[in-house]
Amino acid sequence: MLTKQTVKFTKSLQIKKFRRLYNQFIIEGEKTVLEVLTSDFNIQKLLITSYFQNKYKKELQPFSDRIELAGDKELDDIGSLQSNDSAIAICEIKNYELPKVLNPEWVLVLDNVNDPGNLGTIIRIADWYGISRIICSEDTADIYNPKVINSSKGSFLRVQVCYVNLSEFLARQKMDIFAADLQGENIHKIVFPDAGILVMGNEAHGISADVKKYITRTITIPQFGKAESLNVGIATAICCDRIRSSQS
Amino acid sequence: MLTKQTVKFTKSLQIKKFRRLYNQFIIEGEKTVLEVLTSDFNIQKLLITSYFQNKYKKELQPFSDRIELAGDKELDDIGSLQSNDSAIAICEIKNYELPKVLNPEWVLVLDNVNDPGNLGTIIRIADWYGISRIICSEDTADIYNPKVINSSKGSFLRVQVCYVNLSEFLARQKMDIFAADLQGENIHKIVFPDAGILVMGNEAHGISADVKKYITRTITIPQFGKAESLNVGIATAICCDRIRSSQS
Repeated sequence: MLTKQTVKFTKSLQIKKFRRLYNQFIIEGEKTVLEVLTSDFNIQKLLITSYFQNKYKKELQPFSDRIELAGDKELDDIGSLQSNDSAIAICEIKNYELPKVLNPEWVLVLDNVNDPGNLGTIIRIADWYGISRIICSEDTADIYNPKVINSSKGSFLRVQVCYVNLSEFLARQKMDIFAADLQGENIHKIVFPDAGILVMGNEAHGISADVKKYITRTITIPQFGKAESLNVGIATAICCDRIRSSQS
Repeated sequence: MLTKQTVKFTKSLQIKKFRRLYNQFIIEGEKTVLEVLTSDFNIQKLLITSYFQNKYKKELQPFSDRIELAGDKELDDIGSLQSNDSAIAICEIKNYELPKVLNPEWVLVLDNVNDPGNLGTIIRIADWYGISRIICSEDTADIYNPKVINSSKGSFLRVQVCYVNLSEFLARQKMDIFAADLQGENIHKIVFPDAGILVMGNEAHGISADVKKYITRTITIPQFGKAESLNVGIATAICCDRIRSSQS
């Protein structure tokens, strides 16, 4: 049985205000919690079922001072997963430092991507394509929202996500700044450089006027049928696939 | 106010058994309901708020005999959307006929894609890339599940989705049968033909042994980073983008 205090505290981390107040967030489910045990994230507490405890005795040993045993179904109630018979890790938030001017590499910039599921998917895509840095506008969904963490499938452990004033940030960069938008160059015809910035915009409104000023090349995924648009996660994946295949 | 009978009937259509029994399903939200009014789907009933009624007087005229007025919040309770202040359409299910042997065109085949959100996303992608036919194994998510309809963003109106015994179906086809899987040909190096079949597998288990027998070419999206996998919707989009750009 978890203590009342633990239940209350863990639940509070579903809300951004409390995550920022305590500088902590939750990681849920067998696979991702197992992965965090060997990551460089600072684990404050592990709430685990006896199933998880018995299965991963060796992996849990270094954390024996931070374990609280949870009853069946208890984790379902305090977390965001529909069902979790394994574990919740409470970890310290990492605040990554962002260099003023980026080294030449491919970087993703998100301009007000609102949906937590979309952000999580984009983190997973970045991780697949070896993009280690995502820079978000301050109004983009919070990386430490449990829905983002869950949909990133562990990729948040490897991709650094920062929140900045995008206009100020983009104004300082020397690399080409690409943006996916309507009526740009056909992405199928572009040979991408070895480094650059790719900006993806809001689900409904695309790229904001403030950010548009800094775009040096607008690119478009050609449409062959009748759907009005592609989801921002899908569009990001197609762009990243083109970028990486240009270089290989 | 909706009648008790309407509330009960509409709610029952969230469940596959009742959708099949009545051969009807629901479409929710302002944009998609508006779109269905001008489609060739057979509308049985329209449950609308006074907001929707006043905004679309002209579009609603041909359906005046099938309208029931709903109070504020009533649609939230009977549908699957978190908030719906506009409309729900109750429509007849379409049972598309599938020719024994397909004409040469690009066709998507889904082998036990389980998640309704993924199926909806794949329908939207097919629609974007001008693929008008998706053939599903009988254990793939139900197209008329409200979550599929919602995540397809209206594309279900244009893409024909059928359920068949995949082994029997694939055995009869003459076109090349591609499958996205690990350890296949690098998708970046392939020139795709003008027509073919692309098989996408289950989220956790990939393509089933039964279906694998019919695959003529296995293709792979190269990984540049560390994520373990890509979501099946994302992988479908990247494959479709490569297929269409090969031809243009």
